[in-house]
Formats: sequence, C-alpha cells, structure tokens
Amino acid sequence: MSVTQALDGSVEIVDVSPRDGLQSDPAMVTTDTKAELIGRLISAGLRRIEAASFVNPKRVPQMADAAELMASLPRLPDVRYIGLVMNRRGLDRALAAEVDEVNAVVVCTDEFCRRNQGKTTVEAVGVWADIASAADSAGVPAGVTLGAAFGCPFEGEVPVGRLVEVARSVAEYGPAEIALADTIGVAAPTDVFERVAAVREAIDGVRLRAHFHNTRNTGYANAVAALESGVSVLDASLGGIGGCPFAPAATGNISTEDLAYLLGRMGVDTGLSLEGLCAGADWLSEALGHSVPGYLSKAGVFPRPNSRH
Amino acid sequence: MSVTQALDGSVEIVDVSPRDGLQSDPAMVTTDTKAELIGRLISAGLRRIEAASFVNPKRVPQMADAAELMASLPRLPDVRYIGLVMNRRGLDRALAAEVDEVNAVVVCTDEFCRRNQGKTTVEAVGVWADIASAADSAGVPAGVTLGAAFGCPFEGEVPVGRLVEVARSVAEYGPAEIALADTIGVAAPTDVFERVAAVREAIDGVRLRAHFHNTRNTGYANAVAALESGVSVLDASLGGIGGCPFAPAATGNISTEDLAYLLGRMGVDTGLSLEGLCAGADWLSEALGHSVPGYLSKAGVFPRPNSRH
Repeated sequence: MSVTQALDGSVEIVDVSPRDGLQSDPAMVTTDTKAELIGRLISAGLRRIEAASFVNPKRVPQMADAAELMASLPRLPDVRYIGLVMNRRGLDRALAAEVDEVNAVVVCTDEFCRRNQGKTTVEAVGVWADIASAADSAGVPAGVTLGAAFGCPFEGEVPVGRLVEVARSVAEYGPAEIALADTIGVAAPTDVFERVAAVREAIDGVRLRAHFHNTRNTGYANAVAALESGVSVLDASLGGIGGCPFAPAATGNISTEDLAYLLGRMGVDTGLSLEGLCAGADWLSEALGHSVPGYLSKAGVFPRPNSRH
Repeated sequence: MSVTQALDGSVEIVDVSPRDGLQSDPAMVTTDTKAELIGRLISAGLRRIEAASFVNPKRVPQMADAAELMASLPRLPDVRYIGLVMNRRGLDRALAAEVDEVNAVVVCTDEFCRRNQGKTTVEAVGVWADIASAADSAGVPAGVTLGAAFGCPFEGEVPVGRLVEVARSVAEYGPAEIALADTIGVAAPTDVFERVAAVREAIDGVRLRAHFHNTRNTGYANAVAALESGVSVLDASLGGIGGCPFAPAATGNISTEDLAYLLGRMGVDTGLSLEGLCAGADWLSEALGHSVPGYLSKAGVFPRPNSRH
C-alpha cells in the first residue's frame, strides 16, 4: 500500500506532553502550568490528551498532583483525558479523578519492565488483567501501551516473536487500544512495517496506536511508516518534550507541531492549528526554562500565511 | 513499490558537511580543520564528499581557502571530491584545483536564484550550459543541484510544473546527475514521491540525487521516501550541520550518522561506520564550539555493541 493510499482520511494525534513530556523534564512545573498546557492543547485542536500519570509520587514526583490537575481541567464533550495507571491502586485514583480513559503499560522485556514498574512482563500482564476488568466494571475504556516494542535499553533487540507474544497476552483482556511504543527511539520504518503487520496478524480487531520517540531522528519516518501500515492514531508531544525516567538516553517524543506540519503537507487531516501549536511550543519552552526539540515553532510554518502562494 | 522492495541494494551517501555544512556555520574553521573533517569522513567510509565551494570569497568567506584545501587533501583511487561552482570562473578554479567532479546550482525560483547567485533561473541555466560544456572538455563530470525544488523562502510554493521545466532545461546539457534539493526543509514524503516521479518522467535516464534539510523534522522521512522512489544517492552532512547563507531559517542538512543509522536498521548498505561517524560528529562539535543537530552521537548506536543481543 502506498502512503497516499494509506493516508486517505484523517489521523488522530494524542498529545502526551502533560504526562510523557513533563514527567522526565528537569523542570518541575506547577499544576496551574499543566492546566494551561492542556488548555493550549485543546485550543490548538487536540481532542485526546494524556493528562497525567497516577503512579507512585515517590517514583515520579512530577505526577504527584494528578488528582488536583484533573479536578482543575475543563470538561468538554469532545475532549478525552487519558490517565496512565501502573496498578490497581493507580486505577482507583484515576477513576476517582474521573479520567475519560485509562492507559496501562506492559514493557516487552523483563529487565526494563522491572525497572519501570517493578514487575516482569508476565507479572505486568497480570496487573493489566486486573486493571482491564476493574475499568470495564467502571465503564471506562482501558488501553495498553507495549513499552520497548522495538528495542530495549537493557536487553538490546526485542524479537518480533516476543512482541507478538506480549501483544497476544494483553489482547486477551479486551483492550480498547494497543499502542506500540518505541520507548527509546531505535526503530526504523522497516521495523514498523514488520511489527505492525505481525501484531495485527496475531490480534486482528484491536485498534493500534503508535508511540515514537525521536531519539535517533527516525521518529517522523516511523510515524509515516505507521500510517502507511494503517495505524491512524499517533502519540506526540507538544514541543517534542519527553523521555522516560527509567531508560537511559530516552529523549523526546516526536513533536505534535512537527508531526502535524508533516501530515498536513501530506494532505492528511489532523484537525490541528499549526499556529496554535507553535505558539504553545514557544510558551512551553518559556514555562520550562529551556528550548524544546520541536523545530516548527522556530522555522515557521510553510508556506508563510503572507507569502505569495 | 514498498520501501523494502525499493531498498534492495545499497545507497550512496554524499557528505556535504565541508561545504554546505561549514559555509553557513557561525564558526570560521581553518583549512587544517576542514582537512581533518574530510579525513575523518573518509575513515568512516565516505567515498564522495562535497569538499569545497569555488564561489566568490566576498560572498562566502568560509570557502575562500578552497584551492588550498584541495591541495592538502589525500588523493585516493576510490574517493571523489566534489567542488561546487556557480559560474565559469569558479569552474576554472575548481578544475585547477583538480576536483573529481563539479556541481552547479540552479535555483527553481527567480527571487531565490537572484539572491543566491545573482541570476534569474533562466540565466542560471545558461551559466550551467557553459559550465557543462567546459567541464565536458576537461573530462570532469558535472552535476546540477536544483535548489528550492520543494519550496522557496521568498515565493512560497514551487509548482511541480516549474520544477519539471527547470529540470528539463538543465537536462539538455547532459548533467552527470541532477539533485533535487529541499533547500529550506519544507517537503513531506508525498512531495518527494510526486516530484521525483514527475522529474523522472520528464528526463528519464539522468541519475537523480536528493538533498534534504531537516528544518521542520521532515528530512529523514523524505530520505526514506526518496529511496522508495528509487533515488539511491542522498546528500547528508556530518553532525547535521548546514544551511544556506542566503535563505532565512534554512537550518541543517539531515545528518550523515543519523541517516546511516536509519538506513542500516532498514537493512540498506551504506558502507559507513556508525562508530566512526559518531566520533567524527563529537569531534566536529568540539571543533565548531557548539553542539550539532545530529542525535546518534548523543543517544548512541543501537543495539549497543556490548548489549546482550
């Protein structure tokens, strides 16, 4: 399938900057700043936002105000807030905070899964089963992100068979969506083609989402490959901020504004305002006190609104 | 054609860091440093290098030592040095310096062409005709880069028909190669598919090369699209340095090491050493006194040579 064939239609960008973005940023930001970030995302057209993580505040202090943040957010009929949860306790907190969706994590390699959430992969699947069942009872959609789906900072290559096995176990508990995450930014487009196809063959019927980091400058090419593979939900973060506090050298997500520019130029509808995103990225850079990895807000939208064409 | 089909075989990376990279860098580097850069590129496996520009030193002072640099370079049977030339006088200097190839530039839009080389596009084609004829007499291969082939900082969108028209005029004088340059980094993969196909249809038989800047984070996705379109020669610069002194906000080329990582991970042979390139990028960053845009030298090669797999 060619990219142009694949890209008939629209793509949903899930902005993860309030969670994946901020959680490993050197700056500690206030609840008000987080709320402003989310407000700016909504103004720029985002409709699905990973707003907070309901994890142990001792492990991720940047997310300690998750409930307070959720309470301060506007509730709009077409905007959905996702809460990341790592266990049953986190789920209960997320449900109490009235998130619209929860997202669990299962890391595909034992070593990384242990460092990320204190469990082996199999144990994490067990936790996910609990979360899925309780979320279902509460009537809240629950998805799962498969971490290190393309490579592990500790174990190196992750065989496709391993990813498929993890995806199959996770799928048994009825996820609303499964995200394949290149947590440490090592994948190339051929990996994306191969892994999306393999997972889809194993668990046809579950909506797939893709989550790329641009750690080695392959993230945007991978996003295009994911679309070419029929994945129509992509994670990205405003400014391209982000990382993983438990993986060495895991730098930022692909940036929402750069991805939206790329997709827009390919004729794909994302429903996002490039100007709003760029203004948001500039604001975020100032709020964090450092520059952000995204380029569009520095280079400017092309063609310029006032250019001849 | 799928990427994997397209990528059977190898890809040639032309490193343009000594010219496109350094010419707009804020640091003025010595001839010795340039020679060391080129030596490092050769050690890392590069076999075609845009070594210098034979332009008016008043316009581009960083390139004033082109002849001196060429005289100091090792001559190896399998290494080819390209000299950029803008006119007949530059060609004579390049030939005197015994470059292995020359490369001329024709910018697709009049306004940018005027600012870049003081000529309209049609006039620049006339200059190229002179260069082509004289280079042919001297037995030196001559190629042409079509600047702003995907968009212009002054005129905005560049219609495909305009690019094809310029390509066709240029092709009349028998270029060894035509490079399509996204000088200001605005293209997306669909643009690459469309423009490569259109140019190839118009001038079938001339080898195409692609030159991408990563100004809006689309450069690597465009490189993959170019390969998918059958282009097997790609420009890149060590560290991703570069720009254009005559175009606002035209930032770095795609980086040689990041591109080589991406291609290697896709099973494409580039003949390059990632370790050598990363060491070179670190050295370059130190020599220039600022960090470089490429990521691989910071993130590290994956999988790590000492990882379990």
